[in-house]
This record gives sequence, C-alpha cells and structure tokens, in this order.
Amino acid sequence: MSRPIIFGEIEGISEGKWFEGRKEMMPTSFHRQWGSGIDGNTKDGVSAIVLSGGYEDDEDNGEEIIYTGAGGNDPKSRKQIEDQSWTNRRNAGLLKSQNEGIPVRVIRGYTHKSPFSPKSGYTYAGLYSIIDSWEEIGRSGFKICRYRLLYIGNNSTKQERAEEIELKLSTAESKRKEGVILRIIRDSKVAHDIKKLYQFKCQVCQFEVPTKVGSYAEGAHIRPLGKPHNGHDSSDNLLCLCPNHHVMLDKGSFSITDDLKFVGALSGDLFTLANHKINLENLKYHRESHGYN
Amino acid sequence: MSRPIIFGEIEGISEGKWFEGRKEMMPTSFHRQWGSGIDGNTKDGVSAIVLSGGYEDDEDNGEEIIYTGAGGNDPKSRKQIEDQSWTNRRNAGLLKSQNEGIPVRVIRGYTHKSPFSPKSGYTYAGLYSIIDSWEEIGRSGFKICRYRLLYIGNNSTKQERAEEIELKLSTAESKRKEGVILRIIRDSKVAHDIKKLYQFKCQVCQFEVPTKVGSYAEGAHIRPLGKPHNGHDSSDNLLCLCPNHHVMLDKGSFSITDDLKFVGALSGDLFTLANHKINLENLKYHRESHGYN
Repeated sequence: MSRPIIFGEIEGISEGKWFEGRKEMMPTSFHRQWGSGIDGNTKDGVSAIVLSGGYEDDEDNGEEIIYTGAGGNDPKSRKQIEDQSWTNRRNAGLLKSQNEGIPVRVIRGYTHKSPFSPKSGYTYAGLYSIIDSWEEIGRSGFKICRYRLLYIGNNSTKQERAEEIELKLSTAESKRKEGVILRIIRDSKVAHDIKKLYQFKCQVCQFEVPTKVGSYAEGAHIRPLGKPHNGHDSSDNLLCLCPNHHVMLDKGSFSITDDLKFVGALSGDLFTLANHKINLENLKYHRESHGYN
Repeated sequence: MSRPIIFGEIEGISEGKWFEGRKEMMPTSFHRQWGSGIDGNTKDGVSAIVLSGGYEDDEDNGEEIIYTGAGGNDPKSRKQIEDQSWTNRRNAGLLKSQNEGIPVRVIRGYTHKSPFSPKSGYTYAGLYSIIDSWEEIGRSGFKICRYRLLYIGNNSTKQERAEEIELKLSTAESKRKEGVILRIIRDSKVAHDIKKLYQFKCQVCQFEVPTKVGSYAEGAHIRPLGKPHNGHDSSDNLLCLCPNHHVMLDKGSFSITDDLKFVGALSGDLFTLANHKINLENLKYHRESHGYN
C-alpha cells in the first residue's frame, strides 16, 4: 500500500511546480504523507517537508530555513502545547538526513508569515540540505527540535563551479583575518553506498562515530577529486573512514600498498569486503603523490 | 641579528605595494630572506614566498597558484637537477603552514611566464592559504614538492559575508546532485593558541593526528559561531579536539558538565590545563541545545 520513499529529484517535478493540495503530491512519492508535514522516518531519513506556517517558531528566509521538528503542536491554535522529542521518528529522520548529507525537498504552502509562500496551494521550493540541528525553548515555553536548512537547488552543473566557490569561500573567510581549514566532504550517491556497505565503520580502525541517530562516517577519495589530481567519484576510488583517518589519508600521513597494507604512520591491513574492489592505480597515485615508493 | 618571523599582514604594507628589490622587504620582516624565495622553517611555518619564475613547474593562475618547493634547482638554467625533499626546512615549513591554516604572503617578481607579474621589481599579491600538497615528477624528470595556494585577500569583512558564501558553496556543490557535508574549521589566532597550549593533543582522547610535520588538531567551539547560536571566538569557548571528537561535539553525541565530566556517548573527564578557563555558560548552552539537562 505505501509508496516507496524517493530522495532528491523526482522525474517530471521541477522547482516552482504548483500543487493544488497535498493529495496531488502523493502518487509520485513526492510527499507521501497526508497527516504530517515531514515525509520520512528514523531508518530511511527524510525525503520531503512541507512549510506552511503550522509551527509558530519556523523561520522562512528563502534560501535559509529554520525549521521546527514534529510533535507537541496543537493543530487548531498552532501553538506548542508540549515538549518535542528527538526520538520522534520524524525528528530522528531529519537528523539522519543531516548526518548523511541527504537532500530534502522543501514544499511551501500558503502562510501569511512567509513572503516566499504561494498565494494558495503549494509550490516546490527545490532541494535543501540540513546543516545544523539543536533544541531550544520555543515561544510557547516548550522544548522544540530545530534544524537549519540551506537551499541547494535542483539543477546539475560542473565541478569547476564548485572549485570556483571553494576559492571564494576561502577568500571571504580569511578576510576575517583568520586562517581557515576547509573540509568539504562530498557525499555523493556512490560515497553513501560505500559507507552503507561498511555500516559506517572506519576501514582503518573500525570505529564508528556515534550520533543521536546511528553512526557518522566519511567517504574518502583515494585519488583526490578536482584539479590537479582528477580522481573519479567511483567506488573503486573510495574508502569509508572516520574523520581522523580521513584527515590522515588526505595529508598522506599513511598510504596503502597493492596488497592493502598500511605504510607510513600506520601498520596493519585495510579492512575491505569482497564486493568492494579498489583500483590499484588509485593506490599507486596516492603512494606516489605522498612519497611512498 | 635575524629579524622575528611575522605572519599575516604587516602594518603599512598593503596588497599591491611595489618593491624595487628583495632588500627593501627585509627590514620589516615582510620577507627576511635574501637567498631563498621561501621565508620560514619547519618549526614556525612559512610567512612569505616569492614567485618569480625561478621554478619551471610553478603555475600562476592569479587567485590560484601551484607552487614548487625549494631545492634541486639550478639557479642558472632554472631547471631541476635533482630531487626535492619534504624534510627540506622550507618545504616542511610550507606543510606546517598548511596544517595550521597559517596565511602566507605572496610576492610576485617579474617573469615573462605570468601575466600577473609586475613589469619590473616585485609586488605584494596579498595573503594566500595553502590548501593541498603532494609530490610529483617535474618537467626535468626529478621529484618536486607541490603546493596549491588560494588567494584569501587582506581586508577584513563581516561574518555575514562568510555565511553568504557558505550558502552559495552548498548550493553549487549540490547542484552536482550530491549531498554535501561541509565542515569549515576556522583557525583563528585564538584557536591556534589553544591548540598550541595542548600541543595538538585532543582534550577528549589525547590522540594527536600525525602528519609529515607535527600533529593536526582542530579548534572546536563549544557554543557554535554564527547564527543562530552566536558563540564567541574566544579561548573560554574553545577546545582542542581531534576531528572525530570535534564531529561528536558539534553533533551533540556528548556534552560536558560544569565539573568537566562527559555526558552522553562518552564517560570520563575533559582534560584541561590550569591556565585554560572555560566559560560555564558556554557548556550550559551546549548541554541545553543538545538535550542534556
């Protein structure tokens, strides 16, 4: 009976598309819930949310949204009447989407509180990424779960664009008279698959970074993406690592031989599963670019 | 006899300033070396470099520079005649600056190879940040140490600018149909001081992430900077952490009581030094925003 959850873009539904009501969103899995603004759960993460003024603490700044989790809300007065909880499956699902870099479809319904809302019905506002979460006491005096979402658009473009922005970011940051260590972890579909394969356990130390919902790991490219290295975003160039060993791999503190043994600051063997083949050319590139010959 | 090394801006020397020769740069510590293009060493890091076409593999793309390390270069032919080494104190100093997010002053001397160079003499090109390093075989067939530098400017501006760019970055990235986990580690002077105080050892696990030159650690803000948290970039709001425990702190996997004990996914005590006072209000904010009450 229930339709499958689908993440990211849905064929035939572009940003800006208008819907008369919630029912029209359901057949395509665009937003499958009738009774809840949040489509998703603890296990899968969240694929879509509706913003329609239903929570008094929501803030819609266009490209930035401060969103309130589910629960404790009186549907008539739209006020909080009890505390929200992180164990609520909608709220835990939003945390999971944050941890794993899963993009969320944002749908705006009419509300007088947002200049970005449609005059009636609903519009698709595009994909957003959840970049922060915390709890606080809302206007009504009850605990609310909070999320900060940033617009990430729905069109594909080139890697060069990202490089350009990386440059600008680093520029703007350091104009604040600070050094900046910038770490962009690109959590593509293939990286996500590798992390899932290893159940978010580091292939070096087997540690899994615990969070409120499941574990956190990073997809680490053996041969780096981007100029001048030009590595591929493919499973044969990816490892599932904890942040510490990701930093060490990127800095060349250790490297890996063709028989998957560590050289440098680590000893022992890389943990790999039989169905995860690593391209030896990538290991060679990493060794050579960090002086392990 | 030797002048002190100074990092970042030097009073009275703005971007674009022209120098007739290298000697004019020495009295202010702007660039203290007569015989080397790189001013700095393994212990301190590098404060300034000169780009003047002396290394055949250098690439000057304006806001991006691919720089070659020191050594193995024949001053007459300007060709590599032997391998470069990471243990060379200039090259190790550049790695240290990369690790610690130390900004580097870039000075351009005349060379026909760069459209950005002055017609004669030298100009100050502003502050750059070293964001990558690796080794490769150069045009002459010898090993060279390589660094990628990005322009970071020399004017101060507002935090909002960084936030805006963060938003754009996240936009551009995900237009590539990927999730992105963005981690910007702001390595300000005060964060750097805290890391130095703890000798780059994590205050949770005492691990220090090894690199080719010394250890790597991150300055972690207890109450986050930026909207909506508005924490301060001050020592009483900073911890020296390894990347794993930084992620866990930011995600609220654990928090810290007023008597500096862990709650949540960790147990035990935070390691602190007597001369590092933590503001208990910041700990309270962290506990409350992650549900440890």
